[in-house]
Amino acid sequence: MKNVALLGATGAMGQRFVQMLEGHPYFDLRLLVASSHRKGKKYGEDVHWLLGSNVPEYVRDMELHDFDPEILEREGIEVVFSALPSDVARDYEGKLRSRGFAVFSNASAYRMEKDVPIIIPEVNGEHIKLVEVQREKYGGFIVTNSNCSTAGLVMALHPLKKYGIEEVFVSTYQALSGAGYPGVPSLDIQGNVIPYIRSEEEKIRRESCKILGALDGGKIKDYHMRVIASCARVPVKDGHLESVVIKLREDVDLEEIKRSMQKMQGIPGLPSSPEKPLIVRDEVDRPQPALDAYCGGGRARGMGVVVGRFAKYGPYLRFFLLVHNTIRGGAGNAILNGEYALKMGYIG
Amino acid sequence: MKNVALLGATGAMGQRFVQMLEGHPYFDLRLLVASSHRKGKKYGEDVHWLLGSNVPEYVRDMELHDFDPEILEREGIEVVFSALPSDVARDYEGKLRSRGFAVFSNASAYRMEKDVPIIIPEVNGEHIKLVEVQREKYGGFIVTNSNCSTAGLVMALHPLKKYGIEEVFVSTYQALSGAGYPGVPSLDIQGNVIPYIRSEEEKIRRESCKILGALDGGKIKDYHMRVIASCARVPVKDGHLESVVIKLREDVDLEEIKRSMQKMQGIPGLPSSPEKPLIVRDEVDRPQPALDAYCGGGRARGMGVVVGRFAKYGPYLRFFLLVHNTIRGGAGNAILNGEYALKMGYIG
Amino acid sequence: MKNVALLGATGAMGQRFVQMLEGHPYFDLRLLVASSHRKGKKYGEDVHWLLGSNVPEYVRDMELHDFDPEILEREGIEVVFSALPSDVARDYEGKLRSRGFAVFSNASAYRMEKDVPIIIPEVNGEHIKLVEVQREKYGGFIVTNSNCSTAGLVMALHPLKKYGIEEVFVSTYQALSGAGYPGVPSLDIQGNVIPYIRSEEEKIRRESCKILGALDGGKIKDYHMRVIASCARVPVKDGHLESVVIKLREDVDLEEIKRSMQKMQGIPGLPSSPEKPLIVRDEVDRPQPALDAYCGGGRARGMGVVVGRFAKYGPYLRFFLLVHNTIRGGAGNAILNGEYALKMGYIG
Amino acid sequence: MKNVALLGATGAMGQRFVQMLEGHPYFDLRLLVASSHRKGKKYGEDVHWLLGSNVPEYVRDMELHDFDPEILEREGIEVVFSALPSDVARDYEGKLRSRGFAVFSNASAYRMEKDVPIIIPEVNGEHIKLVEVQREKYGGFIVTNSNCSTAGLVMALHPLKKYGIEEVFVSTYQALSGAGYPGVPSLDIQGNVIPYIRSEEEKIRRESCKILGALDGGKIKDYHMRVIASCARVPVKDGHLESVVIKLREDVDLEEIKRSMQKMQGIPGLPSSPEKPLIVRDEVDRPQPALDAYCGGGRARGMGVVVGRFAKYGPYLRFFLLVHNTIRGGAGNAILNGEYALKMGYIG
Repeated sequence: MKNVALLGATGAMGQRFVQMLEGHPYFDLRLLVASSHRKGKKYGEDVHWLLGSNVPEYVRDMELHDFDPEILEREGIEVVFSALPSDVARDYEGKLRSRGFAVFSNASAYRMEKDVPIIIPEVNGEHIKLVEVQREKYGGFIVTNSNCSTAGLVMALHPLKKYGIEEVFVSTYQALSGAGYPGVPSLDIQGNVIPYIRSEEEKIRRESCKILGALDGGKIKDYHMRVIASCARVPVKDGHLESVVIKLREDVDLEEIKRSMQKMQGIPGLPSSPEKPLIVRDEVDRPQPALDAYCGGGRARGMGVVVGRFAKYGPYLRFFLLVHNTIRGGAGNAILNGEYALKMGYIG
Repeated sequence: MKNVALLGATGAMGQRFVQMLEGHPYFDLRLLVASSHRKGKKYGEDVHWLLGSNVPEYVRDMELHDFDPEILEREGIEVVFSALPSDVARDYEGKLRSRGFAVFSNASAYRMEKDVPIIIPEVNGEHIKLVEVQREKYGGFIVTNSNCSTAGLVMALHPLKKYGIEEVFVSTYQALSGAGYPGVPSLDIQGNVIPYIRSEEEKIRRESCKILGALDGGKIKDYHMRVIASCARVPVKDGHLESVVIKLREDVDLEEIKRSMQKMQGIPGLPSSPEKPLIVRDEVDRPQPALDAYCGGGRARGMGVVVGRFAKYGPYLRFFLLVHNTIRGGAGNAILNGEYALKMGYIG
Repeated sequence: MKNVALLGATGAMGQRFVQMLEGHPYFDLRLLVASSHRKGKKYGEDVHWLLGSNVPEYVRDMELHDFDPEILEREGIEVVFSALPSDVARDYEGKLRSRGFAVFSNASAYRMEKDVPIIIPEVNGEHIKLVEVQREKYGGFIVTNSNCSTAGLVMALHPLKKYGIEEVFVSTYQALSGAGYPGVPSLDIQGNVIPYIRSEEEKIRRESCKILGALDGGKIKDYHMRVIASCARVPVKDGHLESVVIKLREDVDLEEIKRSMQKMQGIPGLPSSPEKPLIVRDEVDRPQPALDAYCGGGRARGMGVVVGRFAKYGPYLRFFLLVHNTIRGGAGNAILNGEYALKMGYIG
Repeated sequence: MKNVALLGATGAMGQRFVQMLEGHPYFDLRLLVASSHRKGKKYGEDVHWLLGSNVPEYVRDMELHDFDPEILEREGIEVVFSALPSDVARDYEGKLRSRGFAVFSNASAYRMEKDVPIIIPEVNGEHIKLVEVQREKYGGFIVTNSNCSTAGLVMALHPLKKYGIEEVFVSTYQALSGAGYPGVPSLDIQGNVIPYIRSEEEKIRRESCKILGALDGGKIKDYHMRVIASCARVPVKDGHLESVVIKLREDVDLEEIKRSMQKMQGIPGLPSSPEKPLIVRDEVDRPQPALDAYCGGGRARGMGVVVGRFAKYGPYLRFFLLVHNTIRGGAGNAILNGEYALKMGYIG
């Protein structure tokens, strides 16, 4: 068991971490860090809990701390999960890395740094080697997970890389929880769709090319493909749906594409990696957020990506995918990255 | 003033016709046709009115008839608007055409017939000449309007034809009213997105090529472009949003594209044609169904298509558009087609 | 283990039964009965599954039967759960009772019959003795559970009976799943509230007086109180919220009332009875359907009723309550009734 | 034409004022006051407009001012409408009153002051005389309108006063716009009901007794009745629905009650007063926010209160009502108060 701290513990994403770390076999959440005005309060009394009836009992009486690396050291923290907003993350995560901590972050602050990997273990686990580059420079390291929409997209693209991906057109139907809390005002989104999410389209473009890229002498060489993303917010609580059209270099038939997707494997021994990271559905009307966001079981619940509605038009392949934005696209993937780093011997 | 009958008067689309024909300067709605089990009832007592507080007074006491061409003749009907479901439309509209009526239909039944035009007057008004071919064969004629999503799409594409449209990738966010009544069960769509609308993707593909096609010796030659449509239902009442990426043959800059769209003109003298059929917005987050579906004023309210979020990626142009699905994508366009046919001398 | 059949297996309530009977320690679901047009089909292929990603595996390949008491006999069925619509229930449940079956029904058809009890075990378990009256007359028996809103109401009222309940004013905020499937059209309820649910107000009035009544010489004597119910449908998926004002004969202070509610006990040994059937919350803004509908754990998940927002105004007590309408207010309570009857020795 | 200033012009309620003052026959909106950080900006560029496609053209280029009574004097303002939040209102409105302005406020700050009336002209127009008391003390005066839910309630109660109202039990289904902007986070209310609105229940109790009270020697004597309010927020954009049960001293039959309501009259000559302030509906399922919130026409659109679902249970009368919370329950009523004060000779 590793001692774990959580940064940004009271926000919407922080809550998902708290929920998913409950009873975790490797990670023992011992320290909750939040904004300084919350310092000294009990988690259960201060958080506006969004994930069901009750704050999990194991954290209810834990005290909230403000950010202070010395407390983390004193408490013997070895692993830090970060659900910080990006601006704060830049500062705090950097400081922790310099002090030798292993930081697994959901924030975008460091994602595009040359020596920081964006990892989805089933897709680009080998990028974890960048951790060694960071360690040498800073003592500790930061491993990020991707933007929420990107996570689903690259998982679906990964098994198709072998056919050569030239172009990706993706339109998103993104859930409210992706905007954090308080996030989107209800007056704006009630019975509406908002075709704009700040920086999202750019993140999808840049992150997906990096994640699918190849590690090459201590650096990642971006995968070369054109990605055009059009992002919209819909009145759905959890689960980003994406409409995807891609152009493959090779002419592959639909059945082979589905087989390639179905063959994708989880990482044995990691509790948060589902046996089948991609779930191919043949119904005419799936995936759907309300039905499929939480697919999968045990610790891997919500960690699978559901794909469906495959069609081929000349050189173009069309499908829809669904990814749980705060699980595979957030806290769940960060925890999985922690599990993976531990397994690969990068922690402790 | 022309005497008008409405087929399918009690359904969701029929109600929109009733609402929009109130006080119309050319069309006098005198006969309401509905399913035979409603025969003899008063409209105001039998309809489950969806469009606000009250059934418009002018139709409240009108009697419902079942379908019978002789009644239409007896009542001196010259123009028929049809809000029928497609299966019934095939039979009824055909019979009326044979009896010499001018039928303006929202149904898909005849849209892909060689001698039946799908008309959006500001886009392909000249296709109305097919009416002459029909008249010769049948005595009367059918003019259809397009599928609701298609209407918005072709209006946005029309001013770009001159640059050569090669490929169109469209993902839709379609409103509930597009499915009619009772339509989508609330248990299916509450807090959800359903990535499937029966036949919709196919309709968008085929109808847009026909509408943008050229009239050539009494036939329409399809416009040659690839259209890949991915359709989804969202929990929004009215207004279809569409995310569009197109590939143009020519390299045009964004400002010119917007100017071309802004220059598109309504048809002077037609009450339902807005002065500016395309409204270009520069805000980062528009168009939005809840804000923009009813743009425009007077009889042209909801007849404009709002476009925004323009971006260019290499040879690809990206934008979003919004079309009111039961107005420009339905009853409003059918009425506009009636106005247009009247102006062109095809009625009476 | 008792062999169990389920009537109305493919409807919304039937699906909840299927979900809750999975892995049940006493009841082995072996026979699925549905409308005759579904006869011979596999459950997993024919049902429009509403409760998440997948039809539970244990029923996926089970065949659908139409109603035929002989099949039930041949299959050795001892317990029948019914999720039938009321009109059909009248006929089918009566026939099964005459053949000696133990029927646990969610339908309203028999609820107000003199010798049929409406049971919520934690509230009026002793009414189960009416089963003996039925057995004598018919061979078998029917035990009903209450209307969904009533279930929550009487559970909250039960511990207050000792203070004398004179008047009850209840306004409901009822979820969509209460209307079954397809149920409420989305066009009617999107961004709306509908202040009408057919027969609901009458059911609440009559059933609550019966449930709280006393068994007296083989008959139930209604509890004497005035109940005024005002029912409305809201765009919420699951969980009926109710605003309640009651007038008690005795003057009791708020804290004692809460203590009385908290003291209410589940029935030990019944898997579907929560340890604490009433959960008292002190937050200013609870209960809420999205947070509290599924409170409780294990087989008793969704079987608790959450109460909060207590206030006293003169002789009046005000609170809100939340009941999961298809669990405690439906399938869950029917299954609990089965467990209870089994424990009391009325089955087999 | 009177020169008018609007305080709190950019908020949700301020926007409703802007929308309703467009083209007003008596009030010429000339000065927009907002938070000081907005000072100097153009209204059309700075406001997050919530009420449809476009900011009305007449205010688009108007400059935003911060609060400064001297500017109001310099601009010759005679009438001030206030859409301020309550805390700020206390200070600003008081200052303006001392400078002799006529202030019509939607804020709650002064509502319960002894010499400040809460006016709904059709209900308690005579309370306007309190203006004279204020004028004497302060030079100017403040007229408030009631809390949004209260407005609907007292309008429905007013014609029943003659029968003696003893008790009122009201449960509300309140719209999102009542919470202002940004207001309720979508993550909290999506598919949910929140049974709590801060101070609302208390406001309904106190304000309704004051509004229905009698002017007696320069003071208002509260109407004596018990009011128990239970308030909840629902995912509806506009229009508060209320479930009401009242106990009348007299035994009146339902038809007489409806007739009394229907007989209630608007105030002739005031553009914002509907001919019939109460609209009685006989359908089983009305009123509904999505259908009835905007009933009425012209300047009185949304100023009517719709009542329906009448039932009698012993001495109790039950009905539902619907009031547009930002029109009759907000800006519209404040403007009507201005019209009324003008007509009564209290302005200029």
